[in-house]
Amino acid sequence: MTLSEATGKLNEIEKAAYALEHAQAVLAIDGDTVAPKNSWKGRGKALAYLGELTYRQMVNPETGEVLETILAHGKDTDEVTFRRAEVLKESYDSMHVLPMEEFVAWQELTNEAGAVWREAKARSDWAMFSSCLERIIAARRRYAALKAPEKPAYDVLMDEYEKGASMETLDPFFRTLRDELSPVIREVAAREKPVPGFLKQVWPIEGQRVFSEKIMALQGIDPLNCTLGETEHPFTNGMNKWDVRITTHYHAEDPFDSMYSVIHEGGHALYDLNVRDDLQFTCLHGGVTMGIHESQSRFYENLIGRSRAFCGPLLKILREVFPEQTGSLTEEELYSAINLAKPSLIRTEADELTYSLHVMIRYEIEKAMLAGDLTVKDIPGEWNRMYREVLGVEVPDDRRGCLQDCHWSFGGIGYFPSYALGSAYGVQMLREMEKTVHVWDAVARGDLSPVTGWLKERIHQYGSLKKPCEILPAAMGGPLDAGVYTGYLKKKYGELYHL
Amino acid sequence: MTLSEATGKLNEIEKAAYALEHAQAVLAIDGDTVAPKNSWKGRGKALAYLGELTYRQMVNPETGEVLETILAHGKDTDEVTFRRAEVLKESYDSMHVLPMEEFVAWQELTNEAGAVWREAKARSDWAMFSSCLERIIAARRRYAALKAPEKPAYDVLMDEYEKGASMETLDPFFRTLRDELSPVIREVAAREKPVPGFLKQVWPIEGQRVFSEKIMALQGIDPLNCTLGETEHPFTNGMNKWDVRITTHYHAEDPFDSMYSVIHEGGHALYDLNVRDDLQFTCLHGGVTMGIHESQSRFYENLIGRSRAFCGPLLKILREVFPEQTGSLTEEELYSAINLAKPSLIRTEADELTYSLHVMIRYEIEKAMLAGDLTVKDIPGEWNRMYREVLGVEVPDDRRGCLQDCHWSFGGIGYFPSYALGSAYGVQMLREMEKTVHVWDAVARGDLSPVTGWLKERIHQYGSLKKPCEILPAAMGGPLDAGVYTGYLKKKYGELYHL
Repeated sequence: MTLSEATGKLNEIEKAAYALEHAQAVLAIDGDTVAPKNSWKGRGKALAYLGELTYRQMVNPETGEVLETILAHGKDTDEVTFRRAEVLKESYDSMHVLPMEEFVAWQELTNEAGAVWREAKARSDWAMFSSCLERIIAARRRYAALKAPEKPAYDVLMDEYEKGASMETLDPFFRTLRDELSPVIREVAAREKPVPGFLKQVWPIEGQRVFSEKIMALQGIDPLNCTLGETEHPFTNGMNKWDVRITTHYHAEDPFDSMYSVIHEGGHALYDLNVRDDLQFTCLHGGVTMGIHESQSRFYENLIGRSRAFCGPLLKILREVFPEQTGSLTEEELYSAINLAKPSLIRTEADELTYSLHVMIRYEIEKAMLAGDLTVKDIPGEWNRMYREVLGVEVPDDRRGCLQDCHWSFGGIGYFPSYALGSAYGVQMLREMEKTVHVWDAVARGDLSPVTGWLKERIHQYGSLKKPCEILPAAMGGPLDAGVYTGYLKKKYGELYHL
Repeated sequence: MTLSEATGKLNEIEKAAYALEHAQAVLAIDGDTVAPKNSWKGRGKALAYLGELTYRQMVNPETGEVLETILAHGKDTDEVTFRRAEVLKESYDSMHVLPMEEFVAWQELTNEAGAVWREAKARSDWAMFSSCLERIIAARRRYAALKAPEKPAYDVLMDEYEKGASMETLDPFFRTLRDELSPVIREVAAREKPVPGFLKQVWPIEGQRVFSEKIMALQGIDPLNCTLGETEHPFTNGMNKWDVRITTHYHAEDPFDSMYSVIHEGGHALYDLNVRDDLQFTCLHGGVTMGIHESQSRFYENLIGRSRAFCGPLLKILREVFPEQTGSLTEEELYSAINLAKPSLIRTEADELTYSLHVMIRYEIEKAMLAGDLTVKDIPGEWNRMYREVLGVEVPDDRRGCLQDCHWSFGGIGYFPSYALGSAYGVQMLREMEKTVHVWDAVARGDLSPVTGWLKERIHQYGSLKKPCEILPAAMGGPLDAGVYTGYLKKKYGELYHL
């Protein structure tokens, strides 16, 4: 096969892959937002068949030859084509280790598990979800053993979300977070601030929907290319730069819960929306790892969205939509309110200070789960024990405990560490950005374009074209350093709580 | 090939067909409701590839042999399998006449046309939509010529929506409607009633959303199996009996516009929701023709939803959601208000009396379009001329004229007559139903289950298992008789307007 033949066939493979992935993504988004509850059976049949087509398309001798041919030409090939082959080869290798029946059964299992998890969470019924999770863990262990028998299963799975992540690097990372942050968390808890009166009001959901639109506009998200849906557990899904979906979940008693979901998912969306045109409809159109993706979402959510400078534009929008509820609220009071720190139950609603310890608990549980040291039956007990030990809170039920997150239901074991890594990457990116951008002047003006422009330049535009090792050092100004992250948190909360 | 082999392969064909159809349906629903405006390009790529797979799956010698084998066995085969082969053979024959490239280009064209039509309608810009429509008409004419060269193109197309519909039967049908109804319409127009004060209020959309839920509940639609979305032009799409979607469009100045869309689409939904379990995930899972489908939607919308008996339960729900707006409104006033008859511009908002003449205008225009007697450029002029001549109204712009309906954009030329036929079928079904069901007592109690039960028994349960000729005579108590339909309208409006 010549290079030119291989490149032609690569285009055919990508055309099919794009179409199948697009369809699978829309089925998933639809299932998680507006589809009727009982729709999961029919959707499972559709996803299973689309999965079978994806597998057949990818795992066959011709695809293997196409990829080998392009990769063998190395420097003779253009950068984009070479990298497309490289990224597709990773998918090829992942699929190749599984028989088709197992690959298809996995699509059906995770589709079913999504429906079961939603119901189990609503009923706070761990036993209901257990059998699905047992099958998911078994399937993931089997996959890990086939993929890289020489490595621990959990390392194999984490690598799917963050290239090169391993327990060897994450154990000390989380140890630093715990050691450095636990004393601050204790001090902050001792100086607990009361919840301000303005937060104890009703914030009608219809108003919150309008508020969301204004937040997206402030973030620079074009509604022609990105819409907002409603779901149980917020997520982002981008098919291409002209079709990105974000989601949120409204609570009438708290406008900030949804708002920070919107800004978080909006950060993911901006990554997908800013990828170069020539990478669209190829496997390079999306973010390169989940860790880097989460660095973008957590960047907007916290580093920008919970900054002092952001309180000016935020209060302005809040006043427009909720004039009664905001009354005489000042920027300073708002800044304090959106940064109340207190050990709590729900990861997605946690303050910045305690957030990474929520992630650490999941990391430890997944590690034990994969190593065979923790059965599914024992997860709730262990979860509750760790929340007591690490955060000092009592978990009242599994809905607010080990059933809160959707990740295990879609098979995303090994995903969680990306949130903590992303948070840490983000702080280092901010420090680097501050060297050349007047970040806080711009944010205070309500103009996020210099921030997004910098991130687009260094990260977004490349999609998956550049490897993490090519993107991160330049964007972070050096290697990962948990101390920069904990230093940021200690300084911020030291000032907020006069420690 | 043995019968048993053929049946096994039929199951495989249907499995693939279901999955592809499910995916295409969800992409379409998503595109028409929540997807960002610019998403159409990526969706087009996905739909084109799924179309290609559908074609390859269906048009190949093995599928042909499977279908021939089963059909050749006739009575030896069970009823469901035989009918599945028969219905698939129709799809096979339709696809077979087109080369794959044309079939795929059609998916892309109608996807693009949907996006262009929405934009053109918003701008009231016929020229913007013209090139798409020209290509659609050319493709449909070519298809009709390949499918049945001996028949007029318009007959071939109408047959796709209503088996056996032809100009030979529809010309006299519409002539009767026009001749019988025109004098009544003129008399009613002469006795025009003023719009009652209660209708000149604001009906907040958030309240209308709650109202929709209550209307669906009254109609007996289980939200676990059917959800309501929002769109430009309301439609229903059912993947299986556990996954049906209906849509509406809200206007703050008028709660009845959306309400009658909900009841209309709810009628379609009930048909899909009530099909037998053993027909699910086969090509028999949906309604057998669009004419019969529209008979169900128009049955609930008008025969039930605009009846005197329905005003009791309707007023009760209206009062629950809009206590201020309904004030001292009586059932009698409500009955008069929901049956105001007046020649108007918009088909979907038309009263029962004038409705079929809106359809007739589209029928005449499509006929001329397909015969080559009317160019796309001349459609607005002809449309406006006919609205003036038939209904006596001046069309102020194409948004409220020939751009109002979505049908041509999805290629549905020949669909419109189904609305008028369905309306006529429905009245004959009602007359038959009244022989054994206490329709109006039940409706007045707010209990639609005897009505739906009868329709399920005679029509819904069969999906596409029985042919129209096996279903209709029993449900209608005889052949189509336009006089029954016009008789019903003349009596109802005679009483309402004291003619």
